[in-house]
Amino acid sequence: MTVPNHVEIIEVGMRDGLQMETDFVDTAIKIALIDGLTDAGIQHIEATSFVSPRAVPQLADAAQVLAGAKRPPGSRFAVLAPNIKGVEGAIAAHADEIVVFLSASESHNQKNLNRSIERSMHDVAEIAAHVQETPILKKGAIACAFGCPFEGNINPETLLKIATHFRSLGFQALTLGDTTGMATPPLVSQTVSMLREHLPDVRLTLHFHNTRGIGLVNVVAGLNAGVDSFESSLGGLGGCPFAPGASGNICTEDLVYLMHEMGIQTGIDLEKLIQVSLRMESVLGRTLAGQVMKAGPRLRLHSYQNAACATG
Amino acid sequence: MTVPNHVEIIEVGMRDGLQMETDFVDTAIKIALIDGLTDAGIQHIEATSFVSPRAVPQLADAAQVLAGAKRPPGSRFAVLAPNIKGVEGAIAAHADEIVVFLSASESHNQKNLNRSIERSMHDVAEIAAHVQETPILKKGAIACAFGCPFEGNINPETLLKIATHFRSLGFQALTLGDTTGMATPPLVSQTVSMLREHLPDVRLTLHFHNTRGIGLVNVVAGLNAGVDSFESSLGGLGGCPFAPGASGNICTEDLVYLMHEMGIQTGIDLEKLIQVSLRMESVLGRTLAGQVMKAGPRLRLHSYQNAACATG
Repeated sequence: MTVPNHVEIIEVGMRDGLQMETDFVDTAIKIALIDGLTDAGIQHIEATSFVSPRAVPQLADAAQVLAGAKRPPGSRFAVLAPNIKGVEGAIAAHADEIVVFLSASESHNQKNLNRSIERSMHDVAEIAAHVQETPILKKGAIACAFGCPFEGNINPETLLKIATHFRSLGFQALTLGDTTGMATPPLVSQTVSMLREHLPDVRLTLHFHNTRGIGLVNVVAGLNAGVDSFESSLGGLGGCPFAPGASGNICTEDLVYLMHEMGIQTGIDLEKLIQVSLRMESVLGRTLAGQVMKAGPRLRLHSYQNAACATG
Repeated sequence: MTVPNHVEIIEVGMRDGLQMETDFVDTAIKIALIDGLTDAGIQHIEATSFVSPRAVPQLADAAQVLAGAKRPPGSRFAVLAPNIKGVEGAIAAHADEIVVFLSASESHNQKNLNRSIERSMHDVAEIAAHVQETPILKKGAIACAFGCPFEGNINPETLLKIATHFRSLGFQALTLGDTTGMATPPLVSQTVSMLREHLPDVRLTLHFHNTRGIGLVNVVAGLNAGVDSFESSLGGLGGCPFAPGASGNICTEDLVYLMHEMGIQTGIDLEKLIQVSLRMESVLGRTLAGQVMKAGPRLRLHSYQNAACATG
């Protein structure tokens, strides 16, 4: 299998990242950050979440964010929509795509959504029926697709059953979420091969976390398995509720840098993207996990005159 | 090319990491950390540096460290030795191996060693002659092998010339140092292929930095090119003098975790190694860059009862 020569990078920091922040980021700042992302050439953005503002107060301004952000031609704004109420909010706000989650792990689904996988699959069917007459795109997202922090390994049959359910309901795309960073290169290869064999017409996206430092290695395993769509977060925004101090989502700039250095196109301007991540860092007032935003691309050279060196 | 089923991991944190620390780490603590590393199964350790104590005061206790650390059967203790005086110190302290550096970049060599590459090559020849009658092993280390922060890309002919010089002087092994994190997967493949073609009997070690977040991706590129020897630093200790806040060496626990998950043996006990890195963190009083030391191996499960969850 040859590696794709173009990949789609879906920015999830505005949703998956910001939802974990303690402080509310002003709506105008969110809009400016999203405008910065589209200006840098990111077309596909998971922009916010239509969930209960009590559950996720950080994203209570979902409708205003969608109304305020520029929508350049070719852009696609996705939003999380966990139930019919969320879906209605998404439609009213002219979201291009809804993302509907469930977990491949029974205990994680119970903890996260307060219901069984079976019950969640029923909910997904209701949502699909509800949007059937609308042009909104549907993406299924399977959390803990590569492992569960409570249960360990995931039964491939459970994963396939959920993926098949999404497909049968007309979901065009499917994200495999590595919610707590348990994916490994062999697991990625096996999982992608299995799903491609049984569901060849589903567009697969991989969503890795860098919790154990190997997020970008898993991206390369995904590329080698033929996947050309990845989710990541500006600056590596986001974290892991199970491992204090550990990284969350893989970082968009680092991913873009790697793709470009491997000769794979993304349509994204890395220098502009770095500026957006630096702005996010200054908004949040703390250092983010991203590396390229600190070091710059490899040929951003340094002045010989003032440099200090240490052998190594 | 098949990926090797066993790799050698050389721990460089005690030298390449500690030399960048502001505070001196007590000799007894250094010895305890090294004993922890060998107890975790790390056989090959770059333990210290026989350089001027004025230049690198952090490693002024090189002889005492080598005298105090346990030397289990099969272990190999390497030390940096930049000149004849350093080599004599290394021999007197019964080091198993000397590591002699020079840079593939003229300006970096000038900045780092205060002389031209040509002059450094002459120095290397003197060192080789000096140790000819001793059983000490010789390793050549080429800094900036994948790029220079002042000059950018490295001329492959310069790299080959230096490597050939080391080989002709009887150096059994060669480390390619990615001093400021400029290696990329295609560069790694090209460079390794070139050196293997021209110098098939040199044992190659790759030394990557995670400055741009892709250190472990480069390791996989090295594996795919047939390399089975890598240097790394416990907890990711070390940094980059050119990019404040950026990561330095790739992290040993993360590397060991990745190798094991890829089915590649290292002979290292990951749980024991994590304990040594946590001890290093507590000695230095700050958080290190390593991820697996925070999150644990993937099947270290969490209690369902007290967990908080966030969709994603």
